[in-house]
This record gives sequence, structure tokens and C-alpha cells, in this order.
Amino acid sequence: MLASQKTAKFPGVHVTNTLELRANEQSVDLQPASDAALRFIGVIRTPWKTRDDCPRQGHLDGPSCELIVDPVWHEALQGLDAFETIEVLYWLDKSRRDLVLQSPKSDGHTIGTFALRSPVRPNPIGTSVVRLDRIDAGTLHVRGLDCLDGTPLIDIKPDRCVFTPKAPPKAGDARPDGPKMGGEKCKNRSYLPPYLGSL
Amino acid sequence: MLASQKTAKFPGVHVTNTLELRANEQSVDLQPASDAALRFIGVIRTPWKTRDDCPRQGHLDGPSCELIVDPVWHEALQGLDAFETIEVLYWLDKSRRDLVLQSPKSDGHTIGTFALRSPVRPNPIGTSVVRLDRIDAGTLHVRGLDCLDGTPLIDIKPDRCVFTPKAPPKAGDARPDGPKMGGEKCKNRSYLPPYLGSL
Repeated sequence: MLASQKTAKFPGVHVTNTLELRANEQSVDLQPASDAALRFIGVIRTPWKTRDDCPRQGHLDGPSCELIVDPVWHEALQGLDAFETIEVLYWLDKSRRDLVLQSPKSDGHTIGTFALRSPVRPNPIGTSVVRLDRIDAGTLHVRGLDCLDGTPLIDIKPDRCVFTPKAPPKAGDARPDGPKMGGEKCKNRSYLPPYLGSL
Repeated sequence: MLASQKTAKFPGVHVTNTLELRANEQSVDLQPASDAALRFIGVIRTPWKTRDDCPRQGHLDGPSCELIVDPVWHEALQGLDAFETIEVLYWLDKSRRDLVLQSPKSDGHTIGTFALRSPVRPNPIGTSVVRLDRIDAGTLHVRGLDCLDGTPLIDIKPDRCVFTPKAPPKAGDARPDGPKMGGEKCKNRSYLPPYLGSL
């Protein structure tokens, strides 16, 4: 139960978990989340044991981290080693989920949750693009993460900028350049690997 | 219950929802998902009513779509209009979740689920980078989506390539170029807006 709660003793007073609000931050009252359920597919190992240790943004030449994939999903990794960069989704399980306004600098100035990449959000899903160094027996060695050690893993996809759909085009793809590698979303990205377009 | 099931009548035979497997595709047996719960934050309106209508990949100059955000989250949009491109996460609620090998071309050749950006995956979360045209009363008008009309919305973030963390650097950020705009993950992307770096 991560939503804020009103107490019977102090009606109207929000008891917002264990974390205090910073000046001018604002929370909302929520029922428990129940619209869809996630199944963790593994766990992430990083060098960062506390939030203060974590970088705010990962770098592709940062420390090596591991994505340890549950054995039931090992076959789903087939073909992934063709991609030099991949997208990783993970569940930021330490984050409160009820803030609409946040004060990143703790200075009284706030900004909307959706205008930040803060882990504090209604559905605390982190997304990163990381460099895939190698895959060994269901463990992916990657660089570019910025999350805590032990973070649950929820998805792995090819980076949209180096991926071309394998299936035939559909009606909505009817355009001169067809469906390919993210199109203009990714032009001129410097880290595109040499095999780009060959898959 | 999206996982495959064995029937009492035909033990060992998988009844895998309403969708048939293509040649050589492979499913796994799963318990119902229960590791974490999502709260939908709104709904997505697109021109595409059937899967065959949808493009395989959205384009930043594609048709205008709407992200209709639930009123409880409207304040969380403050400041988002400063970003020309944003990242959108949504729940592909029509997708089965139990395939490890898929055959995108239906030709008997298979590839692992994590080596595809198919909607069929253990946690069917779509991620897109879209162009934000404008925000009107909690509705975002965007271009670049490729999902069905009515798809549940789960998160909105600034595009990592045009976002600079607002909070002070932390230990893990101690490097010459500091934390900024996705660093080398995004260099030279052609659609970076003119205000880049000014936020």
C-alpha cells in the first residue's frame, strides 16, 4: 500500500508513507493500484547499494552491471546478442507513487512529476538504454544503468534506434520510408553500431 | 489470467488463450502475475481500431493522437510543455504474455521475445518517443505512436535525450561531463530542439 492515507485520528491529515514531503511538494489520495499486474523476469545487480550512491543518469561507459534473467525466460534471449544497445525496463520498488508535484532541489520550487525522470511516479518504471557487452548463461553484462542493486527487472527490448521490424509492413506503415529503425526519432545517433541495418 | 494453462481433459496440452501458436513458436507455463500492480493514469486515443490498422513503428510526423490523463494527475503535467519530445509508456492489454520464441514472419523461423519489440512479452509495456504538439486541459496531443485506440496509459516522462536532471549531482555522477541530457546515449540526434540545455 503505497498510496497516501488519511488517519481516523486526524481526518484530513495525510500520512504519506515513511518519506516526508519537501516544501511545496504535493501528494494525492489513491486507492491501491489494481489495474494490471507485473511479473518480475529477473533482478539487476549494480554497484550501488544506497540511493545516494546511484548516479542520476547512467553512462554507456559506466560500471558493468548484470541483468540476471529467470531461467524460465532464457530462451527468450535468443537473438538478443545481435544488438549492441538494448532498452531495459525495471521496477523502482523503493519509490512512493503519490506525488504530483516534486521539488528536486528541495528549494521550495516544484515541477510536475511527468516533467521529471524521477523514480517517484504513479507507476515507478525506469527505462534505460544500455550497452550490451555479452550474455553468459542467462546473465546480461551491460553498461549504462543508474539503479539500485537488487532492482527487479521487468523487460528487455532491442533499442528502438537499432531495430527494424521483422514482420511485414502493415497498413499504417504505408509511407515512402516504411518501418525502419525508429526513423527520424534516431537519426545521427553517434553510437549506432556498424551492423546497423543488416538485421 | 493470461498465462497458458493445461486442461484436465487433455493433460499436457496447452490451451494458450484465444491465439494460436505459429509454427515453432514456444510458450511457457506461468502462474498469474502478482509481483507488482499498475495504476492506469489515463487512456490513449489513436486512429487505429484494429491491430492490422496499426503501424509497426510510429513516426514523429504521423497522425495526431491524444493522451487523455486522469484528472487526479493533471497537476503532475506542470512543466511538461517545455519538452518537444517525450517518452510514453502504455499497457498493451490485448497481448498474450507467455511466449519465449516468436515467429514474426510466420515462416517457421523463430527469435527470442526479448530480441523483438513485439507487443507479446512477459510484461506487455510499450515505450515510444513522441513529439508533443500541445497540452489542453489534461489532454496531450502527440505524434509518433503506433498503438491501438483505447490503450491504457501508464507513464509520461521527458525524453532522456532532452532532459537534464534538476537535482544536484550524486556520488555516481562524479565524472567530467556530469549528469546531462543522456550524454553519449543521445549525441547528434537530429530532432533535438533549439532550447536544448536551457532547462
